[in-house]
Amino acid sequence: MKHEINLSEFDIHTDLAIDIIENNTNLDGVKQVIKNIEGITVTDVELDRKNGLGKKEGNYITIEFDDITDKENYKKVKEVFILELRRTFDKMNIKKKDTCLFIGLGNAKSTPDSLGPKVSKDIIVTKHIYDLGDLDDKYRVVSLITPGVTGTTGIETSDIIESIVKKTNPDFIVAVDALASGSIDRVNKTIQMTDTGIHPGSGIGNSRKEISKDTIGIPVLAIGVPTVVDASVIVSDTINYMYKHYAFNKEYSKNPKSKLTFNNVNYLNKNIVINTKDKEDLFGLIGKLNSDEVKILINEVLNPIGYNLMVTPKEIDFVIDKLSMLISSVVNETLHEI
Amino acid sequence: MKHEINLSEFDIHTDLAIDIIENNTNLDGVKQVIKNIEGITVTDVELDRKNGLGKKEGNYITIEFDDITDKENYKKVKEVFILELRRTFDKMNIKKKDTCLFIGLGNAKSTPDSLGPKVSKDIIVTKHIYDLGDLDDKYRVVSLITPGVTGTTGIETSDIIESIVKKTNPDFIVAVDALASGSIDRVNKTIQMTDTGIHPGSGIGNSRKEISKDTIGIPVLAIGVPTVVDASVIVSDTINYMYKHYAFNKEYSKNPKSKLTFNNVNYLNKNIVINTKDKEDLFGLIGKLNSDEVKILINEVLNPIGYNLMVTPKEIDFVIDKLSMLISSVVNETLHEI
Amino acid sequence: MKHEINLSEFDIHTDLAIDIIENNTNLDGVKQVIKNIEGITVTDVELDRKNGLGKKEGNYITIEFDDITDKENYKKVKEVFILELRRTFDKMNIKKKDTCLFIGLGNAKSTPDSLGPKVSKDIIVTKHIYDLGDLDDKYRVVSLITPGVTGTTGIETSDIIESIVKKTNPDFIVAVDALASGSIDRVNKTIQMTDTGIHPGSGIGNSRKEISKDTIGIPVLAIGVPTVVDASVIVSDTINYMYKHYAFNKEYSKNPKSKLTFNNVNYLNKNIVINTKDKEDLFGLIGKLNSDEVKILINEVLNPIGYNLMVTPKEIDFVIDKLSMLISSVVNETLHEI
Amino acid sequence: MKHEINLSEFDIHTDLAIDIIENNTNLDGVKQVIKNIEGITVTDVELDRKNGLGKKEGNYITIEFDDITDKENYKKVKEVFILELRRTFDKMNIKKKDTCLFIGLGNAKSTPDSLGPKVSKDIIVTKHIYDLGDLDDKYRVVSLITPGVTGTTGIETSDIIESIVKKTNPDFIVAVDALASGSIDRVNKTIQMTDTGIHPGSGIGNSRKEISKDTIGIPVLAIGVPTVVDASVIVSDTINYMYKHYAFNKEYSKNPKSKLTFNNVNYLNKNIVINTKDKEDLFGLIGKLNSDEVKILINEVLNPIGYNLMVTPKEIDFVIDKLSMLISSVVNETLHEI
Repeated sequence: MKHEINLSEFDIHTDLAIDIIENNTNLDGVKQVIKNIEGITVTDVELDRKNGLGKKEGNYITIEFDDITDKENYKKVKEVFILELRRTFDKMNIKKKDTCLFIGLGNAKSTPDSLGPKVSKDIIVTKHIYDLGDLDDKYRVVSLITPGVTGTTGIETSDIIESIVKKTNPDFIVAVDALASGSIDRVNKTIQMTDTGIHPGSGIGNSRKEISKDTIGIPVLAIGVPTVVDASVIVSDTINYMYKHYAFNKEYSKNPKSKLTFNNVNYLNKNIVINTKDKEDLFGLIGKLNSDEVKILINEVLNPIGYNLMVTPKEIDFVIDKLSMLISSVVNETLHEI
Repeated sequence: MKHEINLSEFDIHTDLAIDIIENNTNLDGVKQVIKNIEGITVTDVELDRKNGLGKKEGNYITIEFDDITDKENYKKVKEVFILELRRTFDKMNIKKKDTCLFIGLGNAKSTPDSLGPKVSKDIIVTKHIYDLGDLDDKYRVVSLITPGVTGTTGIETSDIIESIVKKTNPDFIVAVDALASGSIDRVNKTIQMTDTGIHPGSGIGNSRKEISKDTIGIPVLAIGVPTVVDASVIVSDTINYMYKHYAFNKEYSKNPKSKLTFNNVNYLNKNIVINTKDKEDLFGLIGKLNSDEVKILINEVLNPIGYNLMVTPKEIDFVIDKLSMLISSVVNETLHEI
Repeated sequence: MKHEINLSEFDIHTDLAIDIIENNTNLDGVKQVIKNIEGITVTDVELDRKNGLGKKEGNYITIEFDDITDKENYKKVKEVFILELRRTFDKMNIKKKDTCLFIGLGNAKSTPDSLGPKVSKDIIVTKHIYDLGDLDDKYRVVSLITPGVTGTTGIETSDIIESIVKKTNPDFIVAVDALASGSIDRVNKTIQMTDTGIHPGSGIGNSRKEISKDTIGIPVLAIGVPTVVDASVIVSDTINYMYKHYAFNKEYSKNPKSKLTFNNVNYLNKNIVINTKDKEDLFGLIGKLNSDEVKILINEVLNPIGYNLMVTPKEIDFVIDKLSMLISSVVNETLHEI
Repeated sequence: MKHEINLSEFDIHTDLAIDIIENNTNLDGVKQVIKNIEGITVTDVELDRKNGLGKKEGNYITIEFDDITDKENYKKVKEVFILELRRTFDKMNIKKKDTCLFIGLGNAKSTPDSLGPKVSKDIIVTKHIYDLGDLDDKYRVVSLITPGVTGTTGIETSDIIESIVKKTNPDFIVAVDALASGSIDRVNKTIQMTDTGIHPGSGIGNSRKEISKDTIGIPVLAIGVPTVVDASVIVSDTINYMYKHYAFNKEYSKNPKSKLTFNNVNYLNKNIVINTKDKEDLFGLIGKLNSDEVKILINEVLNPIGYNLMVTPKEIDFVIDKLSMLISSVVNETLHEI
């Protein structure tokens, strides 16, 4: 589990580009296309070199969905995911005969961080069969490593990857990792694909090394799912919902006969406008702060007393099982002609 | 994982008696003794039949500690835990020759709920050896079941326990289960022992059956550790910390040369008094609400949109491992003379 | 893992009726029908009350197949298995609305004995949903227990089963267990179904209790796969192969141009006749012994020095995974209309 | 699991030097010292360059013991093992400050082959702490990899190891692997240490690459335990026991009052002399063959029909757990000053 993107000064962890865009007003150099397919939202984000987010240029494809443990929903997500992964392969100019190194990042012994190793178990690996001259045409040459985490190997994960790449010369990399989310409603309900590379491991100080086309010369596709969230994110998200709830209640008390219900679409709609007066009435001094300032404050309160936990939903074991099944089958069907 | 104690109208889950006492002003019929042993807090609570908490009479012993993954701390907690467990056995009038049925409650497949089954793996079981006539004197007659959860057996867990008790006639029961906490600072840092019985499984409607001395005629000792917490608890706890932070900052701005630091003991001290004016200034209308009203509001906001998750810290796998090791060794050393 | 059928005096373990029939000449009261479906052999054995094997009356259906880890073969075995299981349900007069208790026998912590618990993980359990009134018509009412083994519970497994049956009143039982085989070529390559009941656990002395229609009044269907074999079985099977090999070589040296090859069907055919002279030439005094006498001798040699191990193939983990997947899906599709 | 040493033409697998020496008459260039410590046998074998076994020069230390699941025996074995491992470190000239790369060879998903990965879980890894400048003096700099097996990575395991060694520059390697045994009485009851290197993976054809001081320039200590055995080994070992049993019985029938018992030390003593006449009487033509010829024949019989399985005892899960605990604690106490 890496923590790729910090809201820098605010120290809110998120690995999702979409979280940052949502919380940012400077969208220079950001192209964003959103489509909705049977309840599944696919967001294409393209950042150019001088984007206002201070982020590396490249593409981020985000698929957002509901409960993956539902059988019907699982099928729909799988269909969309395959299409998007193939499209991403094309965009990255990955050819049919290109050889792949699959990397399962994370810690097999920690459930919320075990997504990479779990997916690895079901990836169809073929390099050794190819080396023997026995590989059927419909299979791509695929090798695989699960490098572990620095805490259990003592070695920088990026060093392990670099060594193996150098020795085995794959044409491209597909890496899977668990991520941190910047909002509760995305945990276990979002897949992010990006061609900007990976930054595995916690690293020493700020030295986390990038594994990307820039550093190793071959395309790197990273697939991630947020499985954890900061306790402070839960609080700030809830405060936002409280604003909406308050606004909704005021509206409703004026028009009690309207069909508004508290958990309807409007309430959840992120574009609902909360006026300043309402916020201050409801939340006093806190209500005068903007969203980022609230996050800074919560972190200021929770961090020093050690309560800004990274948390994961109680059902994480079952969700990780379903997500690994989904990702391994989609990756297999995209790598090979099966 | 049961959810024994609801803050009823408020629908805040906690299985810890100590959480309820802390949040309650009507302490009629409640005797409480607190002792501190090398940084470990032991709270003895005795509730009589007419206690003001509306709770069943009986004893609750709560051990609170810091990070159990620290080797030194682990040792200290173990020592205190053994003493308290022996004391509880004595209080419950459990004799040396009494036979024990150990019950590992919970779901082995869900990490935060796997405490009971994990502990079970290391309990020394002897009934079959005793039945053969081969049991060494220093061992007690112990049998064990891990009944699973209703979601995977289809059977009320209490029905399974009742059947086995009827068939095997143990003299007393020791049950271990994962619990829900009503405050973030107790998650994975508290052991509760009680002689009031267990209420296993989620049950159907309100029909969760009690397994206790009252219902099955033999003493039942329940040992639990809170491993999960409601998202709403995180929010309400944080709001409380924000009040304290605000009060602290105001105080500090008046006496900038004082030695107060934000994460010092005073700040964490739960008895700090926050005045009403401060609360309202900081949190507006929210500040006018008392602690329970805030919880009701947060639940009202989060529940209908499905975000009132039960969450668990990211490190749950490692903590559960340590906690099971602790509990199984303490239970073994108390049951047997080893 | 039970050891249902001993070659009594010979102390060769096998739980397969088909092993006993093959090694027995007194076939009074034994009806046997063999059919072959695309390389899969199905043997129906019906024993009447006075059968010459000294075995309990009832039906044994045995499905023999090749490598289950082959995808195509897996599919074929699954089809045959479903048909045979449905036929067995009909024979046992199990009706569409009858409620089922599924029992996963064995020890989850011992790979070769984990078949029952592994299958249990994927059985669709519905009793709790039915009790709530929410069960869809296409599902049967199914509950499930994995009672563990006496070595880890201290309780006779049959006592646990009896208690649960009494409390929950199912209409019939389906039990899955790992078995011992009396021949190496059946290990992991045979499924036995029988309506004669189960004898779970190693029991104390000879007291292993039967769970069957006779003892608990409801039909009991046992499904088993042999996953282990005695070391002595490997030796006696090999001696038999050596006889065949010798006979084959003699034949071949006479007709060197014949198309016989060592590993062809004839060689493996169990009905090949080895003449007495050949056996004595090849194996001296050993060659004078009949098959059972050889087994007795090997046991006499290996048992006292502790080398008559129960062994299992090195690949057992992968095979158990495939077998559990097979059995759970076939049981689900037979219990429910899915 | 590698298969380092073949009885070449005979195609009997064993990875134990001691198996080969025992079955070989040409002991030129072989120095052997045997000592017995409280029932534990330690055999030092030193092979020089021109040894008659055709084996690479170097040292093999073999520790043979009884049931490791017995608590008392476990302690004794641990004491001896620590002494021998320290002695081996000294012999290999490994200094206190030398940095170590620990390699857990084998397949975590296959119980009999999971020894290396299982041991890895408990090795104290420190390189990342050292790199931060925080390492306590009593700890050595240790890193760790579990490279997996070629069947799941697609990459030659030796290639992975070479890359990591090149990148991280350790001073020496300690590798742990499960082995194949050439005799049933050594399975799970023998630890072999050698400074001659490792040959990981099944490799392609005969190309299995050696990782040794010769090939990578740093000392390589391999620690292995045989966990599997060929079915043919079980047969040939049993035939040998049958000879002894026959000789014993003849002797006993002459002196029925002697205190000989079938399972006494003499019977198991490998140096017992069986005369040729006895062998031929008992086993006919088979009795005329020497030990290696019998093995060749058994392989000729079993291999073509696919029954020359690698097998492992039924209790392998529990034994592997104990063995990993033993090896990880001994390695930790030798690497570090703890």
